[in-house]
Amino acid sequence: MSTGGARGDEFADAGLLSPVRAGTPVEAAVTDHAWLQAMLDAEAALARAQARLGTVPATAARAISDAARAAHLDLFALARGAREAANPVVGLVREFTSVVAARDAAAAEYVHRGSTSQDIFDTGAMLVADRALGLVIPDLDRTAEALAGLAERHRDTAMAGRTLTLHAVPTTFGLKAAGWMWLVLDAAGRLRRVREQLPVQLGGAAGTLAGYLEYAGHGHGSPGAASYAYELTAAFAAETGLAQPVLPWHALRTPMADLAAALAFTSGALGKIAVDVQSLTRTEVGEVHEGAVAGRGASSAMPHKRNPVLATVIRSAALQVPQLAATVTGAMAVEDERSAGGWHAEWEPLRACLRLTGGAAAHAVELAENLSVAPDRMRANLHLTGGQLVSERIAAALAPLLGKAVARQVLSRASADAAASGRTLEAVLGELPEVTRHLSAARLADLVEPTHYTGAAGALVDRALTRPRPGRWQDVVMAPSSPEPQD
Amino acid sequence: MSTGGARGDEFADAGLLSPVRAGTPVEAAVTDHAWLQAMLDAEAALARAQARLGTVPATAARAISDAARAAHLDLFALARGAREAANPVVGLVREFTSVVAARDAAAAEYVHRGSTSQDIFDTGAMLVADRALGLVIPDLDRTAEALAGLAERHRDTAMAGRTLTLHAVPTTFGLKAAGWMWLVLDAAGRLRRVREQLPVQLGGAAGTLAGYLEYAGHGHGSPGAASYAYELTAAFAAETGLAQPVLPWHALRTPMADLAAALAFTSGALGKIAVDVQSLTRTEVGEVHEGAVAGRGASSAMPHKRNPVLATVIRSAALQVPQLAATVTGAMAVEDERSAGGWHAEWEPLRACLRLTGGAAAHAVELAENLSVAPDRMRANLHLTGGQLVSERIAAALAPLLGKAVARQVLSRASADAAASGRTLEAVLGELPEVTRHLSAARLADLVEPTHYTGAAGALVDRALTRPRPGRWQDVVMAPSSPEPQD
Amino acid sequence: MSTGGARGDEFADAGLLSPVRAGTPVEAAVTDHAWLQAMLDAEAALARAQARLGTVPATAARAISDAARAAHLDLFALARGAREAANPVVGLVREFTSVVAARDAAAAEYVHRGSTSQDIFDTGAMLVADRALGLVIPDLDRTAEALAGLAERHRDTAMAGRTLTLHAVPTTFGLKAAGWMWLVLDAAGRLRRVREQLPVQLGGAAGTLAGYLEYAGHGHGSPGAASYAYELTAAFAAETGLAQPVLPWHALRTPMADLAAALAFTSGALGKIAVDVQSLTRTEVGEVHEGAVAGRGASSAMPHKRNPVLATVIRSAALQVPQLAATVTGAMAVEDERSAGGWHAEWEPLRACLRLTGGAAAHAVELAENLSVAPDRMRANLHLTGGQLVSERIAAALAPLLGKAVARQVLSRASADAAASGRTLEAVLGELPEVTRHLSAARLADLVEPTHYTGAAGALVDRALTRPRPGRWQDVVMAPSSPEPQD
Amino acid sequence: MSTGGARGDEFADAGLLSPVRAGTPVEAAVTDHAWLQAMLDAEAALARAQARLGTVPATAARAISDAARAAHLDLFALARGAREAANPVVGLVREFTSVVAARDAAAAEYVHRGSTSQDIFDTGAMLVADRALGLVIPDLDRTAEALAGLAERHRDTAMAGRTLTLHAVPTTFGLKAAGWMWLVLDAAGRLRRVREQLPVQLGGAAGTLAGYLEYAGHGHGSPGAASYAYELTAAFAAETGLAQPVLPWHALRTPMADLAAALAFTSGALGKIAVDVQSLTRTEVGEVHEGAVAGRGASSAMPHKRNPVLATVIRSAALQVPQLAATVTGAMAVEDERSAGGWHAEWEPLRACLRLTGGAAAHAVELAENLSVAPDRMRANLHLTGGQLVSERIAAALAPLLGKAVARQVLSRASADAAASGRTLEAVLGELPEVTRHLSAARLADLVEPTHYTGAAGALVDRALTRPRPGRWQDVVMAPSSPEPQD
Repeated sequence: MSTGGARGDEFADAGLLSPVRAGTPVEAAVTDHAWLQAMLDAEAALARAQARLGTVPATAARAISDAARAAHLDLFALARGAREAANPVVGLVREFTSVVAARDAAAAEYVHRGSTSQDIFDTGAMLVADRALGLVIPDLDRTAEALAGLAERHRDTAMAGRTLTLHAVPTTFGLKAAGWMWLVLDAAGRLRRVREQLPVQLGGAAGTLAGYLEYAGHGHGSPGAASYAYELTAAFAAETGLAQPVLPWHALRTPMADLAAALAFTSGALGKIAVDVQSLTRTEVGEVHEGAVAGRGASSAMPHKRNPVLATVIRSAALQVPQLAATVTGAMAVEDERSAGGWHAEWEPLRACLRLTGGAAAHAVELAENLSVAPDRMRANLHLTGGQLVSERIAAALAPLLGKAVARQVLSRASADAAASGRTLEAVLGELPEVTRHLSAARLADLVEPTHYTGAAGALVDRALTRPRPGRWQDVVMAPSSPEPQD
Repeated sequence: MSTGGARGDEFADAGLLSPVRAGTPVEAAVTDHAWLQAMLDAEAALARAQARLGTVPATAARAISDAARAAHLDLFALARGAREAANPVVGLVREFTSVVAARDAAAAEYVHRGSTSQDIFDTGAMLVADRALGLVIPDLDRTAEALAGLAERHRDTAMAGRTLTLHAVPTTFGLKAAGWMWLVLDAAGRLRRVREQLPVQLGGAAGTLAGYLEYAGHGHGSPGAASYAYELTAAFAAETGLAQPVLPWHALRTPMADLAAALAFTSGALGKIAVDVQSLTRTEVGEVHEGAVAGRGASSAMPHKRNPVLATVIRSAALQVPQLAATVTGAMAVEDERSAGGWHAEWEPLRACLRLTGGAAAHAVELAENLSVAPDRMRANLHLTGGQLVSERIAAALAPLLGKAVARQVLSRASADAAASGRTLEAVLGELPEVTRHLSAARLADLVEPTHYTGAAGALVDRALTRPRPGRWQDVVMAPSSPEPQD
Repeated sequence: MSTGGARGDEFADAGLLSPVRAGTPVEAAVTDHAWLQAMLDAEAALARAQARLGTVPATAARAISDAARAAHLDLFALARGAREAANPVVGLVREFTSVVAARDAAAAEYVHRGSTSQDIFDTGAMLVADRALGLVIPDLDRTAEALAGLAERHRDTAMAGRTLTLHAVPTTFGLKAAGWMWLVLDAAGRLRRVREQLPVQLGGAAGTLAGYLEYAGHGHGSPGAASYAYELTAAFAAETGLAQPVLPWHALRTPMADLAAALAFTSGALGKIAVDVQSLTRTEVGEVHEGAVAGRGASSAMPHKRNPVLATVIRSAALQVPQLAATVTGAMAVEDERSAGGWHAEWEPLRACLRLTGGAAAHAVELAENLSVAPDRMRANLHLTGGQLVSERIAAALAPLLGKAVARQVLSRASADAAASGRTLEAVLGELPEVTRHLSAARLADLVEPTHYTGAAGALVDRALTRPRPGRWQDVVMAPSSPEPQD
Repeated sequence: MSTGGARGDEFADAGLLSPVRAGTPVEAAVTDHAWLQAMLDAEAALARAQARLGTVPATAARAISDAARAAHLDLFALARGAREAANPVVGLVREFTSVVAARDAAAAEYVHRGSTSQDIFDTGAMLVADRALGLVIPDLDRTAEALAGLAERHRDTAMAGRTLTLHAVPTTFGLKAAGWMWLVLDAAGRLRRVREQLPVQLGGAAGTLAGYLEYAGHGHGSPGAASYAYELTAAFAAETGLAQPVLPWHALRTPMADLAAALAFTSGALGKIAVDVQSLTRTEVGEVHEGAVAGRGASSAMPHKRNPVLATVIRSAALQVPQLAATVTGAMAVEDERSAGGWHAEWEPLRACLRLTGGAAAHAVELAENLSVAPDRMRANLHLTGGQLVSERIAAALAPLLGKAVARQVLSRASADAAASGRTLEAVLGELPEVTRHLSAARLADLVEPTHYTGAAGALVDRALTRPRPGRWQDVVMAPSSPEPQD
């Protein structure tokens, strides 16, 4: 990158507008630089694949592979030249050929042999996605582990269940955490499935591999054309570590749509946790807090505030990714063997999906591992409604005795009386003959105890924890999921 | 608004603004009426499930099941009453209880026992989705069969491959059709996977099943609570034919997000076909036409036009569904045990996704089964560029002889000369000493023949056709996928 | 609607899945039935416009106008026939011509004379939009009035200002309500501007008005063609009450994009209010409640709950409309004189935008006019942080005395001490020599009083209330904004 | 990640994935660097505004303004520190205070005095938007001028009007270009209106300006508080060149939603042009081509191809922006005085909207100014349907003679005969007695001449060209809208 330095400063994407991913490993894995490297990796793998089949000299493949370093190319020149062809690969091939030629003129003849821009771009994109998911999935695994720990520890920590913003009936924090874990495992599972299927792209100018065949001597009428096409794709897949597709997918965008959908799902799963944490963090609720990191969440003007910043940035991703994914999905319905604009509309949204979701996952690890839970506040809040939180239970107790309709009326009236008088529901009910006729004071006291009405919460936690978790046996100290990028 | 009948007329959704689904079976499967019936089916199944476990009398369950007919309820009253609770189930339970009570007062006590609105609504939604997918998937299978037939028949029908709107290199119509088939099979596979996992919802007021347990005598301290909760969910699943979830998913919206994503994928897959058909239908191109149905596609003002109306309505769906699916996915990130608005924002978009995608699938059957292909126009168009369509091939032939750079220069110059003079590329090349020195006239004639440069297209078609197709052995005459709705 | 009755029941769109609009006037204004009527109104207005210019007999125009009743046509047949032409107008013209012919054979010759489907459809759509906005805008005006009243009454009602879910510094409920009012007025202003500009569509088959001219005797070479084209458009605008466009906008979709954007804005404005109401309604916060309507917000299982259902349904609209509007905006970028799918993709999303936003506005009236405010809870909550809510103010008092950095340190330490010890900030600060050296106990007591730190809130309310409000002088009793639709 | 320089290289956003904006001036105007500078400009303007009112020493304001250079701060440190507070301003204030303190310790006391992060961030965002729109609007003006020129030059260039992909009736290229111009003027008008209203943000911690007032000595009970608040906002507006809002808009996001909507509109307007250009560029159509720039549009594999790359990248923007704008609009509906995530979700999408739309505008200038039009191909294509293109006209001629229904039948049959036999419509009609009885051969010859059926196209062009165009009198040579960014 010759003059890149100055421009690199001016055009740096430091993540200033995207705290959710600023400084996270996934951010480094999807930069322009990383994308350029991945495309060069694709060029090199293609040459090696052709060499495997004997249609490119092994020495040329080696030279091409050796030269395939992003640092040899001028990123800005390529990016700005991209407009000449509506994609950056045309310029990349030209410049890369020069780089190879300067080292090995003969090898330069074999750069991009028989290929087309989209083969390189799409394969590069899949390599980038593969590398990014290689960071995101372990973060999800770690998050799931931490949430499993919360679920286990708080299996029986009763708290108010809230629906439509109001206390409904009791639940447990363990069940809430188990639900979060479940979503995260769902997300990790979807990303794993997608990752395993990320394919190379190999089709040539219009998806027939004709250029590859022609250069390989398998032109019109060659009996070996079919098997060469198959084997070249297999070899390319082997060289990249990606999957082998049956058909070129220049205009069949399943891999992009699947990626986008799984990332949107993941952002939503993490967003759910974030929104719940925010709900429980409110000053008046105070049931959880983001774990203290020095300075974290400090307000510029209000020294006392500890803002739920991790949840905030995770939520900011969840609000963005679904629409970005919709753009990628929408780009499935595009014309011809290569669309004039539809293909090009996928690139930035895909990167944004990877980066935002990956950043959210990195922060989710931190959120889940350090979440501070306040069972005392949960307990206190359980009593805020003066026992009305368990009115459903009392209804269930009275219904068989009084009939459903009458039981409901009694409860409604008692609730209203309690609310109006500021007394507890227990006190009001304890004076109603319809109630005392059937229920002893002790039974009533049991019925109104919120911690006695958590239903199957504990059993559900137990069952949820039996779900296989890929992160379970991993020594997270030994295998940090968020290594610092190497300079 | 006196009576339902009149309102039914005035408020009929005939699909006037949505030709893609007007009159298709999937439309009838997702109406308000169908949704109401599905919720009643859920109520009935719940009672039967409880009866299986002995906590509701079998007679009551039978009476409830017998009464569970949408025709017994006033749809408009329920819909308009929905605003009182922000969902229609509260009113439904009240009215349905009256209906049951009028037949069997004792049974009425057991309606909706221990339940909550969301259990019924979500289970109903899954039933609707299951029924809708039961229509959509066979249509995709039939479409795939028809496309497989096109791929087979046109395995070697050469045509221009087009990229960025221009002729690139030759391809075959068979490969194009095989690609379409591939996408449709991808879509059907995703929908099948989702359909198999559509779960019942069973959680009670806040996801702990506490109400169900309390009514069943498994209140606080009951040792049988855990297994009752499990068995009730299993029984409910068995009664509905849906899957059994591990956790209540009131606030864990995996099934909704998965459904939306698979439907958006499907709309995109069908949209790709539609857009391609449109591209090939253009007056100047004329390579395919939608099969003639009397009157179909007729213009109001121009009697000669036969508009590609099937492709048009399919594309109209593909342009809408991704954004609708984004709304559903976005609703994953919502607060508490039940969101105040997020849950409610899923309903219409989900129906719209089902209806638009299902309608598109119904039309895709017709499009694929009747597509008229014009190999003569394809052949004629192959020659429009005077041989330039195969310049890549000539470059591949010359590169080893002249070096890549020189070969490219020769070609570029010859292309420009040909374009400027209106002569064929063959004629221009045939006069260049650099070319004639290496290539005989016969070799040159072979090189410029477009049908000789379709690469591995045929082999790719063959391989694509080996993919298992669920629709393959289906007697499509015997099992029509698009019956007319019964009035 | 001959056989419509039965189908009308089965295919009724009662709003079961969309409580936000079920039963609201705007819903009735945008039904299929209403849309059909609007298209017939367009046909009639076109005939009258041509009659004004003398190119259609006045008697024919009268006969056409008299016959233009939706009840004469079979909505379902039209909707299902729409697929034949990808739009419902081709069938409408055929059927409507028969209806006219049955009354006046001569007049039938003049139905749709020189016209094209899109002229009728788009003009009908603008009529529907005009009628719908005629319901929505007054509801916004009423909402703004109610919010202005809240702002005025609670100009000085102090409450906690909340940022990132936590108490930040005090504000007033009046300022909050004034902000809501401001957004609503912004929305109403945008909708008014759009409504005034809703244009007729008049272009003929490809936007040149050639058919209209030919029938009018202004074919090739006619000197009067230009002025006839202008005058016909003017007359059509006059007959419909819509605006006169300069150019046919078949493929220039400004009116649709503007409508969608203004509706999305409105849904967002109302959504902001809804989300705030929900935040303040939480059990632990309790600062506002939706006004009591009998039964409103009742939970099926929990008799004590009064859910914020109006806010819930309004929010459900705000979560849907932006993505629907994106589909409409995206349909600007479509090909040719009429797109094959892009145009068709606008229709349902536009209706959904109108209906959801209009329903939200209808509910916003009710929400704003009946919102119950609890100043006592606001006051109580102001003290929850033990005075930390005003730490910014104390910093501002100390900074000039101690320097900004030292002041901040003192505050941070005191805040931490207070939080740890459970004492008030005032108590902790009152023991610090750095503080007592500069601030008397009385000054400190003033500084920590939350109601003394509402800044310019009152002045901002006053200024906001000077904004002209179209609803201000309206006698809302005399001109109800939500009349029941007439049967 | 040792130093900023290296990171600048590694994290450069060169636009590799976004050719539509790579290297355009708007890209440089919205970088992280530009955003940081804009936030510093806001800090400086705030100090100067306070100095105007005498509450900050003029020397301090000067020192703060002098120090407000992005180059003094570590962008990456700020961005990565942003996660600590979920926004970058907290760190910016700390670091910037140090920068000021190193130059003038006394002045450092006045940095960010009374302020809050959002005041600085939002004001910075508006400055960035203002600067970006200052580049985009002139590009739209230039584009409109070029399109006006095309409309004028091709006022009478007949071509096929196309609907649903097929030839419909003739139109003119002038009318098409006039329509494009109209949309671009619509877009420029909307952006101008939004730009004029871009407001400063000034509210302090929770929108009451309390901090500003307290520091200014206008604490509780000060009679001058109201006017100080007003005047400070006015002075801040004057110092920045932005508009003065009535209310702080921390949580009232009108300016963001308006910006996003206007940008989405603009992307759609330009996208329409792009898609039309693509439609007309197709190999088989060939009616327009993007103007030749050396190398532009060259394919990597096919030397003969001149891809419509400008249209391609413009379309790629139009496919992305609506969904990004939906995210911004959706973020209107967020809670409290500052949302925990909603605010943060606006930032990247807003930048992307500015950058993609601005890049599209820059390319639209080039597209419009260099578009090559092929009237001969247009003429040739007019005859492709053997005269059926004017069947509507013949129907209009025959209808008054034969009746509408009979005329239509005659035409339909003749069209079918012509299509089947390969003869022209004129030839077939010339043999039908129903026709020859009424129409002479000369009249028939006139009727079938496509160039005689362009209706009011010319008049519409004339009228469209009377619309005021801000770019009309601009010397575009003297005031280049697209200067090269300075390195």
